[in-house]
Amino acid sequence: MATSGSLDSLTSKLREIHHLSDAAAVLSWDQETYMPSGSGGIRAEQLATLQTLAHNQFVSPEMETLLGSFLDLETGTILPKHQASLDGTAQALLRETWRDFSRAKKLPSSFVNDLERECSLAQQVWAEARKTNDFQRFLPNLERLVSFKKREADYLGFTDSPYNALLDTFEPGSTVAQLRPLFAELRTHLIRLLDQIRNSTVQPNTSLLTQSFDTSKQVDFGRLVLKQMGYNFQRGRLDLSAHPFTTAFHPTDARVTTRVFENDMPSCLFSCIHEGGHGLYEQGLSPKHYGTPLGEAISLGIHESQSRLWENSVGRSQAFWKYFYPKLQEAFPEQLGTVQAEEFYLAINQVAPSLIRVEADELTYNLHIMVRFEIELEVIEGRVYVDDLPELWNAKMEEYLGMTPTSDAEGVLQDVHWSFGAFGYFPTYTLGNLYAAMLFHQAKKDVENLEQQIGEGNFLPLKNWLNDRVHQWGRQYSANELIQRITGQTLTPQPFIQDLEEKFSNLYQFPT
Amino acid sequence: MATSGSLDSLTSKLREIHHLSDAAAVLSWDQETYMPSGSGGIRAEQLATLQTLAHNQFVSPEMETLLGSFLDLETGTILPKHQASLDGTAQALLRETWRDFSRAKKLPSSFVNDLERECSLAQQVWAEARKTNDFQRFLPNLERLVSFKKREADYLGFTDSPYNALLDTFEPGSTVAQLRPLFAELRTHLIRLLDQIRNSTVQPNTSLLTQSFDTSKQVDFGRLVLKQMGYNFQRGRLDLSAHPFTTAFHPTDARVTTRVFENDMPSCLFSCIHEGGHGLYEQGLSPKHYGTPLGEAISLGIHESQSRLWENSVGRSQAFWKYFYPKLQEAFPEQLGTVQAEEFYLAINQVAPSLIRVEADELTYNLHIMVRFEIELEVIEGRVYVDDLPELWNAKMEEYLGMTPTSDAEGVLQDVHWSFGAFGYFPTYTLGNLYAAMLFHQAKKDVENLEQQIGEGNFLPLKNWLNDRVHQWGRQYSANELIQRITGQTLTPQPFIQDLEEKFSNLYQFPT
Repeated sequence: MATSGSLDSLTSKLREIHHLSDAAAVLSWDQETYMPSGSGGIRAEQLATLQTLAHNQFVSPEMETLLGSFLDLETGTILPKHQASLDGTAQALLRETWRDFSRAKKLPSSFVNDLERECSLAQQVWAEARKTNDFQRFLPNLERLVSFKKREADYLGFTDSPYNALLDTFEPGSTVAQLRPLFAELRTHLIRLLDQIRNSTVQPNTSLLTQSFDTSKQVDFGRLVLKQMGYNFQRGRLDLSAHPFTTAFHPTDARVTTRVFENDMPSCLFSCIHEGGHGLYEQGLSPKHYGTPLGEAISLGIHESQSRLWENSVGRSQAFWKYFYPKLQEAFPEQLGTVQAEEFYLAINQVAPSLIRVEADELTYNLHIMVRFEIELEVIEGRVYVDDLPELWNAKMEEYLGMTPTSDAEGVLQDVHWSFGAFGYFPTYTLGNLYAAMLFHQAKKDVENLEQQIGEGNFLPLKNWLNDRVHQWGRQYSANELIQRITGQTLTPQPFIQDLEEKFSNLYQFPT
Repeated sequence: MATSGSLDSLTSKLREIHHLSDAAAVLSWDQETYMPSGSGGIRAEQLATLQTLAHNQFVSPEMETLLGSFLDLETGTILPKHQASLDGTAQALLRETWRDFSRAKKLPSSFVNDLERECSLAQQVWAEARKTNDFQRFLPNLERLVSFKKREADYLGFTDSPYNALLDTFEPGSTVAQLRPLFAELRTHLIRLLDQIRNSTVQPNTSLLTQSFDTSKQVDFGRLVLKQMGYNFQRGRLDLSAHPFTTAFHPTDARVTTRVFENDMPSCLFSCIHEGGHGLYEQGLSPKHYGTPLGEAISLGIHESQSRLWENSVGRSQAFWKYFYPKLQEAFPEQLGTVQAEEFYLAINQVAPSLIRVEADELTYNLHIMVRFEIELEVIEGRVYVDDLPELWNAKMEEYLGMTPTSDAEGVLQDVHWSFGAFGYFPTYTLGNLYAAMLFHQAKKDVENLEQQIGEGNFLPLKNWLNDRVHQWGRQYSANELIQRITGQTLTPQPFIQDLEEKFSNLYQFPT
């Protein structure tokens, strides 16, 4: 039987196109880390040229011919003459390439250009509007963006809801019909747990985390943790940037960044662990499939599952700090020398409603996501006018988190996502949490003495398990298929809820 | 009269192509500075894709049409209908674009690919051969490279000598007929001066430069000097790399690197000043002409003149150290606190024959260049077999520098240039020295109290003079034209010889 080797001309063209997007990614990384402050203008032009070229090459007649020789370009069905001769890997490669190709072809290039221009404009207006707390200023841009995204959904096609088309961009296969009940079930439990926590007499002393911590020592400690996690510094780097991120140009070059604040020690620490999880995914993808969909992450949700698994299931666990806390005390003897491990563990697991998503804890974070998901849905399905968003936002924040923003800057204007047209993106954050818990539960079954190993600083069994079960497959399977293959279950919030219950009933001392 | 504005379609296409080579330059910079060690393989592929694309776009039918609408593609002559309507700037832009275009078109793409493959191979073999001191190992590659370069000269066309075609790649307009007498005159003086220096009873104490100097303080001092020179850190950076270099992606992003050794203080210091000179040129090019030849440096020789002017005419002058030496003493009080300025000044100006070009002083450096120039000429003009090179090298070293290498590793194998096919490159180093002296002489005439200003740490008058006379013009004028415009003279070694005579007769106390 022929293997993916018979797709050589196609994969070599895909790789060449990928070199262009990789180059753009290097330029973006440089922009966020080392680029001189005075050269933003030209960098935007250089990036635009690379991205346009990559897009044009991907939708070119050459690609059409290459892909069309294997499958029906209208339906994506593999041509009968090839069906018997291509193995599963080759078929998956064709299926996913066709997915990208047909989506790209459905969007007229004039539309893509207009949308990009609008996004680039809207981001600047949004930044100004947030700074000046002026939603009205951003309103016309947001209205245009919503109308663009509705048109995008129409171009892409959908069943049931236009929102599905947008969601599918970030989380292929995910639908409103799947998310609604999932989120509803999750919400009930989260709100119940939040109530129990609020009513607890135990409250953490978080002031120990906001002492003065030397920033370069913080970064050194983050680097130490990354190394121990198995993040390979011969195939990656840790740098500083305004917003932590992970970017990869190949499995041999997957870089992470963090930020660091003298008076907020958890920020750098958990950014490193979080991005390290993303970085391990990128380092674990198959170099053999580089440039093709089989060398790419499945979805934002699965990507986020990797960061959340390391950040929360591992990085906020007792086992993890059994190993690392003495080392942290050693790095910061003045600040933590007399602080008990239990006190520290409670502090980094504080749960408290807040207004800002990116500062939210493991539990309430998901309520922030639900607020956004529901608002996006209303807007994209056309039941709410954009100018009603501030009011709707504040009402939902009050309902779910018991807090009302006093300004739009800390309310509806807080996130950058909508300003670059990313509607349907937020749910993937919570999906990441749910996938993470499912995977970690399974890892505990598959890896002998996993928690004990973590307690001894031995993270390789977990890393190897993730390499084997998740990373190496790229987009060979969909998120749903992969989770089913690994855990035997379809997506469920139960493991996540169970973990929260166990951890927080223990920490905050309430009965489950 | 129409201006270069009427070339809009052409320049916007040129800019787009430039974005690709800029992206490649960012990837190369990254490779030399921050890229993880494990990802060299994929980076080479990404670079090749970008470079091939840039090349293909430059020789594309689209470019042919754009350029052909203004000029005769065979001869480069501007079409009669445009001759009256294009101003000098527009005509220069067309002239230089055509120069690049016709050169690129003359080389068959199969030839270019074969040559690139041979170079990439030869570099690896050369590195191994140098390490193991085994010229025979490199010999077959070098023979193939020489035959490639002869074919290249044939494709490009030449008068008098095939070497002229190669030289023209790096130093447009320069010829063997020009260099031979120039170098002969220079050599006589250099050898005479070298004799006088050797016979002097004054000899510097260079051991003061090889004490232990904290490396990060060395880099800080380099940064201080760069700032004072007027190098703009909002439009550039200083990083570390194995070999110091300058690279620019736009006048707003022109970066320099240095290297630093604990026991060799001048290395980092003069690398910073040298690269700073290159960096100032790149920052001083016209952003308006970015992407076109008018936004590019004229030649390697003129580029080198900028680095050498700062490194030698300025950075090894008494005036410079009048200002900087107290600051250097402050940075390194233990090492230099009791060392007199005169002693330091003599040490950094030591002249002594040596075997390795990159370690040579201001004077003998040019003798190293002449050895290479003469050997290249013999080989390219076919009077010498490649396997005779070690012998020829050693004989010329003995003749010019009075030293014979004891191994090929410190002889004919020392430089990387030939292994990547760069024949005709070396002379530009000495041309840079000669141009630098001519320019500095003129600057002293044009800028009031220049040396006094330098002695007070005021480098802006010199920087502004260079911006105005050299940098802003890009390739509007040829090297010869530019030098003539600025100094009223054609290229002459006299100012350089005069500077050496003045400085070294003073330092080494011999009569002129």
